[in-house]
Amino acid sequence: MSYYFSEKDSSAIVNARMGDDINPRLKQVMESLVRHLHDFIKDVQLTQEEWEVAIEFLTKTGQMCDDERQEFVMLSDTLGVSMLVDTINNRRPAGATENTVLGPFHVAGAPELPMGSNISLDGVGESCLFEGCVLDLEGNPVAGARIDVWSDNADGFYDVQQPGIQPKWNNRGIFTTGADGKYCFVGIKPVAYPIPTDGPVGKMLLEMGRHPFRPAHMHVLVTAPGFQKVVTHTFSGDDDYLTSDAVFGVKQTLVAPYERVEKGETVWRSPFDFVLTPVGDKAVSASEAEAQMAGV
Amino acid sequence: MSYYFSEKDSSAIVNARMGDDINPRLKQVMESLVRHLHDFIKDVQLTQEEWEVAIEFLTKTGQMCDDERQEFVMLSDTLGVSMLVDTINNRRPAGATENTVLGPFHVAGAPELPMGSNISLDGVGESCLFEGCVLDLEGNPVAGARIDVWSDNADGFYDVQQPGIQPKWNNRGIFTTGADGKYCFVGIKPVAYPIPTDGPVGKMLLEMGRHPFRPAHMHVLVTAPGFQKVVTHTFSGDDDYLTSDAVFGVKQTLVAPYERVEKGETVWRSPFDFVLTPVGDKAVSASEAEAQMAGV
Repeated sequence: MSYYFSEKDSSAIVNARMGDDINPRLKQVMESLVRHLHDFIKDVQLTQEEWEVAIEFLTKTGQMCDDERQEFVMLSDTLGVSMLVDTINNRRPAGATENTVLGPFHVAGAPELPMGSNISLDGVGESCLFEGCVLDLEGNPVAGARIDVWSDNADGFYDVQQPGIQPKWNNRGIFTTGADGKYCFVGIKPVAYPIPTDGPVGKMLLEMGRHPFRPAHMHVLVTAPGFQKVVTHTFSGDDDYLTSDAVFGVKQTLVAPYERVEKGETVWRSPFDFVLTPVGDKAVSASEAEAQMAGV
Repeated sequence: MSYYFSEKDSSAIVNARMGDDINPRLKQVMESLVRHLHDFIKDVQLTQEEWEVAIEFLTKTGQMCDDERQEFVMLSDTLGVSMLVDTINNRRPAGATENTVLGPFHVAGAPELPMGSNISLDGVGESCLFEGCVLDLEGNPVAGARIDVWSDNADGFYDVQQPGIQPKWNNRGIFTTGADGKYCFVGIKPVAYPIPTDGPVGKMLLEMGRHPFRPAHMHVLVTAPGFQKVVTHTFSGDDDYLTSDAVFGVKQTLVAPYERVEKGETVWRSPFDFVLTPVGDKAVSASEAEAQMAGV
């Protein structure tokens, strides 16, 4: 192989330039990145004009980012990259509750509330009872599990998106299980909402013929001593966008029932059990995980 | 295939989401991009922390860009992407002068000068006579060829990088061939220089164990009626960085001789012929091009 550039050996030539004394993981990641990047360009025979569009797109995406907005995370989300990374790093045994993306709206320090509390502070929306158990893989209740939940309001906005309009901590709360592992709280049935479309990623979705909506979901973060953290959502099984989440966050096992109950103020009931995996439980390989999921 | 996300079918699930009525080329490019991007992530089993580093790197790269600085182009350059795109889009028959990257320092409207003029306006550097012919593929002289040249000064800076320090149009000029196709001008023997290292790309190169230098080169842009535009450099054959150009711009056929002549003020002579390809000459395929280059 020549030191000089050629189309045929392009990625090998670039990779041969890396030093010997560098971080071996960095070397592995960059070698693979360069190889796949060059393969992509050769595959589509990228034109000079298309390269210019790509440079401009990436530049604008970076420039759209500030303390409030992360357009590159949204790019990663909408290309399925965030979910892929999350899934690779959180493979669990069959029956365990699966992860999905954390999203940008989690806030640490939400109020710790007694079981049965209502987290809808503005009282707007269709009231819904969320209840179920936190269990281990054998079906035993897990005591002392912290369930941190958050959702949008009836207009599709999280409280932090509307300071001064929504009450602080609207539709947020933390609940801790007792010996029976049970949890229950009242909130609203979440509603679908669009991710921001006023930047380069919104324009990309439009040109790709895709909508920007996320199906309605309740965010749940479950932690318990001795168990792996679960970062997930439960999705409303009747949502129009369930099969076309703009960020690909929906997994089959995370679709929750919403039953109409019409009992006093409460219009809906959504039962869901969270099944935790012990810390140190050997992560299964992708193929094992797929086989297990297929068998569920 | 499910509508819901799974590791195994990740890129197919993302690509299935695209609309039917979109630009077919956009569809082709995005499908390939998503497939290669997901393959890369699976290949290296990217961790959540590495994903965060990548998001931060891309964000900072975008935010480093302004009217003067294009950090994403530099990222493309240093990963060999710019050269790959340029090469794919400028395949030429054997014997034709090859392209290389334009670079960020070309300025339109340089002075049109008579043959033999000296473009070194500050008079600093080792004087060098550049001469040769502009020819067609059959070796016939090309009349009326415009040769637009530019190089750095003896300190490794282009005039536009040092307004007020270097004279305007220092080391730049445009020459037009007569019936004999010959050109000659006096400049300085260019010197190697580093690309800017005060941004994310400089940090990346450091961590990859790579230096930021480009080997010494004279930029040349040749246009002539009826022929394809040639955007190229001639490289100094004795440069220490010739086999490790930070942006991979060097092609074997672009390495020019620099002969010591010590004739009056002139210290060097660098002969180089430019061979032009007719407009509409069928672009050869990558494999044909490689086979032809191997036979040169």
